[in-house]
Amino acid sequence: MFVRNAWYVAGWSSQFNAQELVACSILSEPIVLYRKRDNSLVALEDRCVHRFAPLSLGCREGDDLRCRYHGLKFAPSGKCIESPGERLIPASARVRSFPVIERHSWVWIWPGDPARADPALIPAAIGLDHPEWTLKAGQFDYAAGYRLVNDNLLDFSHVSYLHQSSFRANNQWACKRPAVTLLPRGVRVQRWVENMTSLRNGAAVDNWCFYDFLVPGVLLLLGRIYPVGTAASCQYEQPTTAPLSETFSCQAVTPLTETTSRYFFSWGPRSGEGAAATAEALLNIAREAFAEDKTMVEAQQKNILRSPNAQIMPTSSDRAAMAFQTLMDRLIRAEGWTEAVGTVM
Amino acid sequence: MFVRNAWYVAGWSSQFNAQELVACSILSEPIVLYRKRDNSLVALEDRCVHRFAPLSLGCREGDDLRCRYHGLKFAPSGKCIESPGERLIPASARVRSFPVIERHSWVWIWPGDPARADPALIPAAIGLDHPEWTLKAGQFDYAAGYRLVNDNLLDFSHVSYLHQSSFRANNQWACKRPAVTLLPRGVRVQRWVENMTSLRNGAAVDNWCFYDFLVPGVLLLLGRIYPVGTAASCQYEQPTTAPLSETFSCQAVTPLTETTSRYFFSWGPRSGEGAAATAEALLNIAREAFAEDKTMVEAQQKNILRSPNAQIMPTSSDRAAMAFQTLMDRLIRAEGWTEAVGTVM
Amino acid sequence: MFVRNAWYVAGWSSQFNAQELVACSILSEPIVLYRKRDNSLVALEDRCVHRFAPLSLGCREGDDLRCRYHGLKFAPSGKCIESPGERLIPASARVRSFPVIERHSWVWIWPGDPARADPALIPAAIGLDHPEWTLKAGQFDYAAGYRLVNDNLLDFSHVSYLHQSSFRANNQWACKRPAVTLLPRGVRVQRWVENMTSLRNGAAVDNWCFYDFLVPGVLLLLGRIYPVGTAASCQYEQPTTAPLSETFSCQAVTPLTETTSRYFFSWGPRSGEGAAATAEALLNIAREAFAEDKTMVEAQQKNILRSPNAQIMPTSSDRAAMAFQTLMDRLIRAEGWTEAVGTVM
Repeated sequence: MFVRNAWYVAGWSSQFNAQELVACSILSEPIVLYRKRDNSLVALEDRCVHRFAPLSLGCREGDDLRCRYHGLKFAPSGKCIESPGERLIPASARVRSFPVIERHSWVWIWPGDPARADPALIPAAIGLDHPEWTLKAGQFDYAAGYRLVNDNLLDFSHVSYLHQSSFRANNQWACKRPAVTLLPRGVRVQRWVENMTSLRNGAAVDNWCFYDFLVPGVLLLLGRIYPVGTAASCQYEQPTTAPLSETFSCQAVTPLTETTSRYFFSWGPRSGEGAAATAEALLNIAREAFAEDKTMVEAQQKNILRSPNAQIMPTSSDRAAMAFQTLMDRLIRAEGWTEAVGTVM
Repeated sequence: MFVRNAWYVAGWSSQFNAQELVACSILSEPIVLYRKRDNSLVALEDRCVHRFAPLSLGCREGDDLRCRYHGLKFAPSGKCIESPGERLIPASARVRSFPVIERHSWVWIWPGDPARADPALIPAAIGLDHPEWTLKAGQFDYAAGYRLVNDNLLDFSHVSYLHQSSFRANNQWACKRPAVTLLPRGVRVQRWVENMTSLRNGAAVDNWCFYDFLVPGVLLLLGRIYPVGTAASCQYEQPTTAPLSETFSCQAVTPLTETTSRYFFSWGPRSGEGAAATAEALLNIAREAFAEDKTMVEAQQKNILRSPNAQIMPTSSDRAAMAFQTLMDRLIRAEGWTEAVGTVM
Repeated sequence: MFVRNAWYVAGWSSQFNAQELVACSILSEPIVLYRKRDNSLVALEDRCVHRFAPLSLGCREGDDLRCRYHGLKFAPSGKCIESPGERLIPASARVRSFPVIERHSWVWIWPGDPARADPALIPAAIGLDHPEWTLKAGQFDYAAGYRLVNDNLLDFSHVSYLHQSSFRANNQWACKRPAVTLLPRGVRVQRWVENMTSLRNGAAVDNWCFYDFLVPGVLLLLGRIYPVGTAASCQYEQPTTAPLSETFSCQAVTPLTETTSRYFFSWGPRSGEGAAATAEALLNIAREAFAEDKTMVEAQQKNILRSPNAQIMPTSSDRAAMAFQTLMDRLIRAEGWTEAVGTVM
């Protein structure tokens, strides 16, 4: 169901403070996160080895975590280092400890084989503190599996219909196909939308939309606005001239369970005068549009659950989505996890 | 589970206006209904062929319906007539279109084989606009399967106990058996209840109750009030003299899913002076009594779900219910649908 | 899943008045209880033989119970004694009647073989009307199976962590093991906790905690307070001298379904001046602490349900819990009920 050997976004860095234990679910695994005294993050299986009490109901003692039910204490490594009243602690008394890294304002967790947790696989997102960009952030929970949310982000043909009002979209998103390129761990999608209404000032512009969608579900999107006519004069290839303006958006889809997901997003312009206000305005538009996505995708999920044997009928607009799914399926098969992965490691 | 080759009530005509798309579930099928410009109704499978988005979230374009997710457009026939950005549309790109007829103030849908959708099979209900009757309407949703609601309507012995107060019922409903006759697509139930308290004025009367219960779950009920003694003087046969007064009630049970149902009802007197007020008073009584039914049948459904292997113990009062269930089972077997019916057609 | 041949607490005597029908679920069985005119209690299967309507929606007629759906009437024995409109009633027309006894302020039901319902098996609890004790009562419903609630009560090592604040607990509960003795139908747990903070006045005391936990889930707990040093001077054996004060607590866990339970408890001091106020103060502390248990055990239940194959890792503090579970498993196997027990008897 899931690619395990990948970095998943567990939250925004700012959501983890020095005191709190934060419980979350990633790939259906209960996980508790907390900061050590040196501010680095720990991610442990949220299930005591003794009787499965959630450690997130426990309390920190220095850098360790004590279960509040019967008092077993765990080191950041996951090893049980105290079992009250016991002289010996079995070597098997450990909860899983997940590799966790903070980067680009996101907290990334690796639910797969820790030996393969290569930080170089973290997508090159742009953080909220990046000097050249001014991004604002939001998030939504979906009552839908991550594949449907990924599919939504991999096929912007829906912009013409679902976001016609919120994004002032014309029908080119639906009627013209983008260029889709395979990447080692993702797909690249590029397109021009001509004579579009600018979200900033309502002027007619040509829009160049360029994004990578990367394993396991990370979207990095550059949007550039040009004078009308630029697309044609570029012969619809990647522009080489300076845009009127540009924005960047980082988005990530994390499976909570098989049928629920968490969706993180940021969006904003180049830094500079007025950038904060522009970012705020864009975020409000994004919230409206992404709520439209959520309504549609959750309704789609319901229809799928009641039609277990029905087959979808892909169109040519699904090319990026199909390519990405093929890539994910290949990774899942290559990992060859058995069902026991969640509990034995 | 269901008889498919039958007309099911999807709603009151007045619930469908010129603008709105109305989503409903019939026999566990998601269906969207809307009016064409000529005011006739269209009923389509509410699940786009592309990626299963509900078409009820879409938008009308003339008489057609466009999916708001990726913009596929469907004709009232169910045929996909536009797929944005595609030159060719596969012939298989169609959603099911259901025969739909408005008659007697109800919207009827045929979820089975369209070739067999004979309008003559629509029961001869009386509409809210019938000149000779003044009926008022209501509806309830049941958290119970349609068979239990049908059973309730097929055995009025419960009136003596469940509706003792609301219908001022004596114990004759329970203690005397009605005459039950088999019809080609239903059962006919006739009975006298003597010396009953009139719901209108509290006077003692003899009540002649005559109804047909027709496939798939439509009740057409004529109630006539006579002076005390009429039942005996008729030798408990069908009366031939004019009643003091009479009422008519139309009721229909539509399965939404296997364990939920929608119940439509109307009731009222002959048209004439004071008829509207009488109909209103009767409807208030009906609402109270039918809420009693709903409470009981939903509790019954819960007990059945927790007792999957237990067997009911029918009594002679179940005769009409058993006969109707035998008829329905025979129709279901004769239809021989496979599980795939909902998605392949 | 359940020991059936045992007395289960269905409620406090005061919860059953002369008029009402009380519906409850015990071991997943729907049961209705009511008082006869002589004030004794009747417990019947809450499911009419006819069509499974709940009898708890019915009405009492003398000592009998009439189903409000189609009017079948049942004697306290469970035998159907009237079926309106029927001359003959099948001998098989009966609902199960459960042995029920009121004792120690609790109503006890025996869901197993009535022939084996020996009142001598009712644990020697102390009622709310006992002259020597002044106990106050409460109850909680758990979204957790009874075994987890039992386990909680069989291992007080959790007191050190979960109730550190509410019970002013030190870590001796967790770090020192109690003496555990097997009883014919339960386990006995005894321990000293030295230099503890008295809940009454904050003074340092030695606490002697003695309880029996009896089939199917009844806790009878005597707590005695002594001057500091008494534990050592007794060589940590059972004290023989008079305590400074003592309290008694009766607690019972009743499975409603496989994953829900009802928890009844009382607690208080010896009768005497100020006893009512002390009992009230203790009950407030208990409510706070038991809410902590509920939060933890329900979270534990959720983790268990999402980890179906995972194995717990018992410690030596689980000795009483393991012994009790072994006893229960032995009783369940010895009973040899089949699945049909709920519906055929």
